Amino acid sequence: MRVAFQGETGAFSEEAVLGYFEGQEIELWPCPTFEEVFQRLEQGAVHRAVIPIENSLHGSVHANYDLLREHDVNIVGEVKLRIVHHLLGINGSAIEEITKVYSHPQALGQCQTYLRTELPDAAAIPAYDTAGAAKMISEEGEPEHAAIASEAAATEYELQILARGIESDHTNYTRFLVLAGDAHEVPVGPETKTSIVYAMKENVPGALFKSLAVFALREIDLYKIESRPLVGSPWAYLFYLDISGGVGDETVQRALDHLSEITAFIEVLGSYEEGGVLE
Amino acid sequence: MRVAFQGETGAFSEEAVLGYFEGQEIELWPCPTFEEVFQRLEQGAVHRAVIPIENSLHGSVHANYDLLREHDVNIVGEVKLRIVHHLLGINGSAIEEITKVYSHPQALGQCQTYLRTELPDAAAIPAYDTAGAAKMISEEGEPEHAAIASEAAATEYELQILARGIESDHTNYTRFLVLAGDAHEVPVGPETKTSIVYAMKENVPGALFKSLAVFALREIDLYKIESRPLVGSPWAYLFYLDISGGVGDETVQRALDHLSEITAFIEVLGSYEEGGVLE
Repeated sequence: MRVAFQGETGAFSEEAVLGYFEGQEIELWPCPTFEEVFQRLEQGAVHRAVIPIENSLHGSVHANYDLLREHDVNIVGEVKLRIVHHLLGINGSAIEEITKVYSHPQALGQCQTYLRTELPDAAAIPAYDTAGAAKMISEEGEPEHAAIASEAAATEYELQILARGIESDHTNYTRFLVLAGDAHEVPVGPETKTSIVYAMKENVPGALFKSLAVFALREIDLYKIESRPLVGSPWAYLFYLDISGGVGDETVQRALDHLSEITAFIEVLGSYEEGGVLE
Repeated sequence: MRVAFQGETGAFSEEAVLGYFEGQEIELWPCPTFEEVFQRLEQGAVHRAVIPIENSLHGSVHANYDLLREHDVNIVGEVKLRIVHHLLGINGSAIEEITKVYSHPQALGQCQTYLRTELPDAAAIPAYDTAGAAKMISEEGEPEHAAIASEAAATEYELQILARGIESDHTNYTRFLVLAGDAHEVPVGPETKTSIVYAMKENVPGALFKSLAVFALREIDLYKIESRPLVGSPWAYLFYLDISGGVGDETVQRALDHLSEITAFIEVLGSYEEGGVLE
């Protein structure tokens, strides 16, 4: 089974892939962009894709919400990853000699307190991604340059961990979705959730309230709501909801029927089992 | 009156400032980052600030939602700007000789169709902002380099407009908020809207639905909902709402009282008059 993800080898997305498919034989397909991940899956070049959808400190990955609607793919699984950042250097480098620290801007932001107190004179330099920064300093071989990245990136690029867990907020988790291009079995059971996207009919007063009522009145839980602009209609929105239950449940089916009465467009993105946390 | 905005002279934010304060004497305070815009206002170094909050194609400016809650400022106005992109070059340059096009990644994306058909061999190179790209090519003086930016940037940096309105989707508007650091008069009248942010109490079933009910049951319109992560509580959220009416209205006041019964935290970000579109 071929599984696509965005980023370099050693990226957090790769850790999510390895954790989710543990014990299964898979072939990893790193892609430079999210767009390419979706294209590969839609074309059938890979069997599954794993994309980050939300971080507990930084919020949703909005580009992936848009891509989920633009491409013909299904959500078939979910997994959460605890994000731990390490300061990495080449063999022989020492913290007190570091002059430049490379990483993704979010990672640099999350380790700001550490950098300010322990490396006040080092320049923080944004890079395209965390694993890419690790790869770069490994190739450069410059002992005064460090990267902030994962343990997997340290192993992959043969770097030394100069300091462990340097992020200031440890409640740092990223939620990933597992996608398939073809049809799949819908899970049943208490841990099932469903993701949908819809746009309201024009001029329905209290539209969003009414759309949430179809679930609340049937005691279907709402886990997450995300709004995105409806392109071409300024200040109108698409709503993405994650709700409890699967499309195989009669209650969910009735709620979706009810919702279709007041929406201009509705699409089920997938029913899947709620994901656990990889530590 | 000193007014802060983020970006270089000639940025779309500057156009929003000039349009909103038309006829008033103002001193422009460009700032390199949004964080600095908020700091200057909070410290009293400027009297007003104007920040982009939402684009009709790309969605919300999430960083500014977070900054609105982190800083002690009030929303006192709103203005919408039609975003029109032009291809700019130095005097004497010609479209057919352009090899590199610099701009903000969003602007490059919005003009993708034009670039693909008219300049298929030119490289699209991301820059920090549109006006910054215009400034750079003006300083370089290289006739083979172009920038995508506004008419104001063309004037400011004495550039020639090589092609006008090159964006593929013309329903491209950005909504800006006008902020003040001190107290201000709350407007009354039919065009008044109010922005609030709140977090629900833990373990309230159907919490979001209940929070929207306090407005729907009083026929208060909901214009916009935005959710952001509640830092420290993975998968819990802050909700930002824009509703009809001002905090001076009794109905709005009752709705907010009702909302406070079920929320752990609630803050009014401001009541202000709905903004028109600058063309």
